[in-house]
Amino acid sequence: MTQTIQISSRAVNDLELIATGAFHPVHRFMTFDEARAVADELTLLSGDVWPIPILLQTHDLPHDTTPTLVHGEEVIGTLRLIEAFPIPLREWAAKIYGTDDEKHPGVAAFYGAGAFAIAGDIDWRGKRRVAPAGIEWLTASEVRDEIARRGWSRVAGFQTRNPIHRAHEYVLRVALEVSDGLLIHPLVGETKDDDIPAEVRLRCYQALLENYFSRDRVLFTPLPAWMRYAGPREAVLHAIIRRNYGCTHFIIGRDHAGVGSYYGPYDAQKLVASLRERLSIEPLFFDEVFYCYRCSGVASAKTCGHPSSDRLLLSGTEVRQRLRAGIPLPNEFTRPEVAAVLYEAFREGAVHA
Amino acid sequence: MTQTIQISSRAVNDLELIATGAFHPVHRFMTFDEARAVADELTLLSGDVWPIPILLQTHDLPHDTTPTLVHGEEVIGTLRLIEAFPIPLREWAAKIYGTDDEKHPGVAAFYGAGAFAIAGDIDWRGKRRVAPAGIEWLTASEVRDEIARRGWSRVAGFQTRNPIHRAHEYVLRVALEVSDGLLIHPLVGETKDDDIPAEVRLRCYQALLENYFSRDRVLFTPLPAWMRYAGPREAVLHAIIRRNYGCTHFIIGRDHAGVGSYYGPYDAQKLVASLRERLSIEPLFFDEVFYCYRCSGVASAKTCGHPSSDRLLLSGTEVRQRLRAGIPLPNEFTRPEVAAVLYEAFREGAVHA
Repeated sequence: MTQTIQISSRAVNDLELIATGAFHPVHRFMTFDEARAVADELTLLSGDVWPIPILLQTHDLPHDTTPTLVHGEEVIGTLRLIEAFPIPLREWAAKIYGTDDEKHPGVAAFYGAGAFAIAGDIDWRGKRRVAPAGIEWLTASEVRDEIARRGWSRVAGFQTRNPIHRAHEYVLRVALEVSDGLLIHPLVGETKDDDIPAEVRLRCYQALLENYFSRDRVLFTPLPAWMRYAGPREAVLHAIIRRNYGCTHFIIGRDHAGVGSYYGPYDAQKLVASLRERLSIEPLFFDEVFYCYRCSGVASAKTCGHPSSDRLLLSGTEVRQRLRAGIPLPNEFTRPEVAAVLYEAFREGAVHA
Repeated sequence: MTQTIQISSRAVNDLELIATGAFHPVHRFMTFDEARAVADELTLLSGDVWPIPILLQTHDLPHDTTPTLVHGEEVIGTLRLIEAFPIPLREWAAKIYGTDDEKHPGVAAFYGAGAFAIAGDIDWRGKRRVAPAGIEWLTASEVRDEIARRGWSRVAGFQTRNPIHRAHEYVLRVALEVSDGLLIHPLVGETKDDDIPAEVRLRCYQALLENYFSRDRVLFTPLPAWMRYAGPREAVLHAIIRRNYGCTHFIIGRDHAGVGSYYGPYDAQKLVASLRERLSIEPLFFDEVFYCYRCSGVASAKTCGHPSSDRLLLSGTEVRQRLRAGIPLPNEFTRPEVAAVLYEAFREGAVHA
């Protein structure tokens, strides 16, 4: 009888992304040499850009060469083992996350997932899971086919782990003006406990898209990925995934995939800019976005010529305080249809913040 | 004593643009073979894309090989004649303008400028004229130098012959979001009698730029060019000129350089798109832009998901009627600072419309 290995929901996501081509040209869990090249050089052994090792972490070395991977009761797949190795956790954390501080949520997840990695090819036997809010999860090839069917030659991808406020909407509108269509691609894997749950976020997107955008200009599907909060390197990973989903452009705002003050607000943009020629996807960089009363509209630090006293800026903390206290979010900050979803979620206790 | 030829203000503009590199790689008034290739094939003899013959038109054949070109009392330059030839006016009008109808203002100007063309190299001796509203006219190389000094690697050029309303401002903001800076480049040569005069237009731009944009993101200088209203072919010419001015991107809206109903609203975009790979400048295409009450902002037919009943659209005719009658332009349509310039111009009779 083959060995059975329990894997985390994060590992399930990685397996789904490997199996469905979202991580192309990575099609297996990485060996030590592969992962080390990624950690040290941001490249695969082929020389292609790759920013973050894709590791199947375990707490023990396996004793079977084709272990069955399960999550709870569900069989997710089989691994054909190439090698197993101890991970230089602190060293690689410092390289990948820019810090080995376990207060960093991505570093904490990395340390907590196990000191060993098992590398190998996978046979995915998991089911395509129903995404929260009943929104269909489309794979990379399904999205590429749909893009071809719609005849789009320029497609801008948007990564999000947050509810959508008017600042995000602004960025989407600008991106759509310079492309044929948008891929709104919220991730639905694990995030920090104080992030808004995926289902609530997806319903916020639905509310916005149904009430403000043309259906024929938007593809909206969740991505079964988890947040590493690795800032610059994760921005590169997010861009590569969207390239595999058929996007020609990818939106990168301030402090993309950042957390706390681990990264400078433009570190992610700088890293992506430095790799621009090698990524095969064109980044769309945005500065800080806000509502400006003098502009009487949403604008960015690049396009608004007015002082900050004319601008409405609410921090994530302020927004959560208002939602908790039932204080309305101004229409300049959040569309009322989106705010209604958030109020309801807070009222029902679906959000603990 | 050399022959003196009176040239029109349009010819003065063409000479200025040739002499200062705005028409690169065209550096002289075209010969018959050159002009025929342009009219027939949209290319120079070198194979480069070129959409409109650059002709020095006269009513008589010259009798001197180095005539002096004057405009009124002012000496503009000397021509070193290569050849003079009769222009197949109707045939070329049909090719360049898509019509040989003399009601078309560009065709009328073409027919009226003379049945002969004199081809040759020029020595420009004209003065750099002071632009209306005292705004400095910068040449192509001066703008390129300034772009380099500012360290911009992506610059979007904006062609305009109209006062700036919020729809134009929207397009500028979108273009700026995806670039490092803007070249606002209104043309100040001859336009139709019922177009708003250049000085008024320039003051409208000043009012907008000073009150809404960052000075360090915008280059604002007039272009001494005249309107041919040649629609698609003139859009290509406008793009090439801005490429020569150092722009990497060029904005093309609906019915660019069109007049009446001679061209379909997307003909210019289609022609530019078909030449995209050969122009060395990336077009930014825009659909119809308007204020939408449901979006509570300016949007385009691509980004707004609401019916036309939610949208504020005023035709040029309606705008002029309001200005003439002193009826306010809504803030959703025109910034109050810009509207104030227009009202004053109408009140002073600077605009006959």
